[in-house]
Amino acid sequence: MAKKLFVGVDIGGTNIKSALVENGKIKKKRKLPTKANLGPERVIVQIKSAIKPFITKAAGIGIGIAGIIDSQKGIVRFSPNLSEWHNIKLVKALKKEFNKPVRIINDVNAICLGEWQYGAAKGYKNVFLFTLGTGVGGAAICEGVPLFGANGFSGEFGHSVIKFNGPKCSCGNYGCLERYVGAKYIVANAKRKMRKKITSLKNYKKLTPHIIAQEAKKGDKVSKEVFTEIGFYIGIGVSNIIALFDPDVVIISGGVSRAGRILFEPIRKTVRKRVLGAEHRNYKIIPGKLGDDAGVLGAVYFASGLTSR
Amino acid sequence: MAKKLFVGVDIGGTNIKSALVENGKIKKKRKLPTKANLGPERVIVQIKSAIKPFITKAAGIGIGIAGIIDSQKGIVRFSPNLSEWHNIKLVKALKKEFNKPVRIINDVNAICLGEWQYGAAKGYKNVFLFTLGTGVGGAAICEGVPLFGANGFSGEFGHSVIKFNGPKCSCGNYGCLERYVGAKYIVANAKRKMRKKITSLKNYKKLTPHIIAQEAKKGDKVSKEVFTEIGFYIGIGVSNIIALFDPDVVIISGGVSRAGRILFEPIRKTVRKRVLGAEHRNYKIIPGKLGDDAGVLGAVYFASGLTSR
Repeated sequence: MAKKLFVGVDIGGTNIKSALVENGKIKKKRKLPTKANLGPERVIVQIKSAIKPFITKAAGIGIGIAGIIDSQKGIVRFSPNLSEWHNIKLVKALKKEFNKPVRIINDVNAICLGEWQYGAAKGYKNVFLFTLGTGVGGAAICEGVPLFGANGFSGEFGHSVIKFNGPKCSCGNYGCLERYVGAKYIVANAKRKMRKKITSLKNYKKLTPHIIAQEAKKGDKVSKEVFTEIGFYIGIGVSNIIALFDPDVVIISGGVSRAGRILFEPIRKTVRKRVLGAEHRNYKIIPGKLGDDAGVLGAVYFASGLTSR
Repeated sequence: MAKKLFVGVDIGGTNIKSALVENGKIKKKRKLPTKANLGPERVIVQIKSAIKPFITKAAGIGIGIAGIIDSQKGIVRFSPNLSEWHNIKLVKALKKEFNKPVRIINDVNAICLGEWQYGAAKGYKNVFLFTLGTGVGGAAICEGVPLFGANGFSGEFGHSVIKFNGPKCSCGNYGCLERYVGAKYIVANAKRKMRKKITSLKNYKKLTPHIIAQEAKKGDKVSKEVFTEIGFYIGIGVSNIIALFDPDVVIISGGVSRAGRILFEPIRKTVRKRVLGAEHRNYKIIPGKLGDDAGVLGAVYFASGLTSR
């Protein structure tokens, strides 16, 4: 374990979270708007502001960021939630500013490292974690080793195909899991159902997965149906993960996962029905434990050099 | 590397292949019919006969066998190609007979270890191998470590779903890749097309993927179409593998893979179109190199204790 202090940063499409971390514990934290639509230069200004208050005491900086991240070269190849981010040399920019070691990692890989070292996946050798939100991400620990892959692009759970002739996804592929269970598709699904059925969802001007989950818990049938369907689709995706990775534990994190039982039950049911040899396998499907802190903790774990890459 | 002699065994639905192996090289080999339909007791007699001629010089026995294999307990939980194999204590039976160390491993995991140590995947850290035949199997090396998974059941590529509402698979699930590209479905696909179109396939009483591939190479359009479609389905599966594992190399082995270019081209084309960030990834999709020997070599590598499990 790193005894030194590090700055951890988690760059999302909406907010940048930063923290001063010591030994897997958060000492202080901060949250700033990302201003993603203003382009890379402006976002980098925000990132610097997020780091600045903590940097004097820190031995280095670890950053989790969504997208195709080249950790070894320190380059953000492409980030779907940040406008105009293509081949941005983020590590170089921050080293120049702060003159301290900087490492970047895919945000979901960071969350997975966090939950594996300090949270819900602690002690397990084979872990698959995915995040449910605007996008659907994934990351794996295989035989006790974090999986980055040949190019550092492993774990793209949201863009694994569950229906080869399904609807077109924003990534260009067809029938990706994210096309069924990304936040906006959950809302679209609810709206489709609202047109035909009696539902308390009609009281809302702007729907979100959170509102739909709340109404489901209050007993709204349509809202429950939405989560049963979402759970089915995710269950198909998780069945594939279990068939391929055979993990001890599948961690479901991210905003949408807070729906709880109404989501987890249809997922578990689908997996029991669908996965090869389910009755002979030990596996768990559980929520994350660290919430919003997983990303900064994992980014620091990565930056402190405790992983192989 | 193991300098000792080992017996390697590869138990298939049709034949049992065995070999005396030293230092990754086959000294002598043998092939016997499996007699799978006669039940476990009779098959075990065949396995013993396959081992016997090589056993005196050997330090141990490594066995690759299809199905859900519990390597740690030495039990074959279930084997789809061997009739009535449920919870068969194969290691115990063979230790009793030969009084030497015995290890069993899933056949595709064995083939993957073989190709990784001695064949097409040599030197790579992230590998996914799959086999195309009666069934479709898979196995992975992640960050230089063979992936067995929490229960030893990882890599079930054939039973990953590519269409959640697709046709029912023999495993009970729906829309599994194997349901589209297993040998008998390739033949069924060809027969469907034969009814409607002019094709040289009509000259054959009994079709096999091998015959269809041969006719495709001779210029038969329908046969080519069959492999283009098969390649598309496999390409979808491989796209999912690349999205999830991000391997340096995807090895395609097994009988059907011998079709060569007519199969590999549509696979590669589909992957280029479908996989997230294809243009930023380095990956190769290539055939295996060791042919029928991969399984016995990998089983010996496993039995010689060079892997962690």
